Amino acid sequence: MDTYDDGNIFAKILRGELPSQMLYEDDAAIAIMDVMPESKGHCLVIPKAPSRNLLDAADETLAKVMPVVAKLARAVKKAFDADGVRIAQFNETPAGQTVFHLHFHVVPIYDGILLKRHAGGMLDQAVLSEQADRIRAALD
Amino acid sequence: MDTYDDGNIFAKILRGELPSQMLYEDDAAIAIMDVMPESKGHCLVIPKAPSRNLLDAADETLAKVMPVVAKLARAVKKAFDADGVRIAQFNETPAGQTVFHLHFHVVPIYDGILLKRHAGGMLDQAVLSEQADRIRAALD
Repeated sequence: MDTYDDGNIFAKILRGELPSQMLYEDDAAIAIMDVMPESKGHCLVIPKAPSRNLLDAADETLAKVMPVVAKLARAVKKAFDADGVRIAQFNETPAGQTVFHLHFHVVPIYDGILLKRHAGGMLDQAVLSEQADRIRAALD
Repeated sequence: MDTYDDGNIFAKILRGELPSQMLYEDDAAIAIMDVMPESKGHCLVIPKAPSRNLLDAADETLAKVMPVVAKLARAVKKAFDADGVRIAQFNETPAGQTVFHLHFHVVPIYDGILLKRHAGGMLDQAVLSEQADRIRAALD
């Protein structure tokens, strides 16, 4: 098992060294917009406790982060009147993991609209910002 | 929001009315083989508490089930020397949900092997049974 490296992009966001569209924060986790979204409203839930992925995560971390994933799933569905929501979490490079700090994808699904390829391109900041506003409003 | 219907297949498995390849059971959840696997060792983690999906699940249910998902992820990786593991959880029909009792897919990923289409076909029971034995052994 490789060890956790705190130079990853989510660790930098958690330390405030990189900007993000922050949607939610509590003692255990943050939620931010995915800057290369597969669909409108695609966001990420990231526990604060360091682990590479699910395989080395502490049970306590998982117990605290999963209710936040559900909270964001409900919020994106409401914010964009989505028809469904997919949760995805990838462990190790062959499974599609690109950032080695545990994170959960919350991907709104819309009838008849195919998902974009992940990491297919960076969304315009103004669009991301507007989507983030709608999710924050739906969280209240 | 639709209400939970306890006539679904996972509720029947939880009540012992339908057979399954049971991998794990505790107070909060069970893990079983997916009979229409996307890859070798594809299994499911199912909380005992009733909810349609993540959108109507209680926080307590999620807090208890997620460590079980991690436990199975580690076990399938070990059992089959998988190169990675994907976790997927679908909410509502447009997102790919087919059984309306909350469940998490634990899908081993192997370098260079594409996933099979989900629900593409029922795996032979003898093969499923042998895979289940290997996962149970890896859980110990």
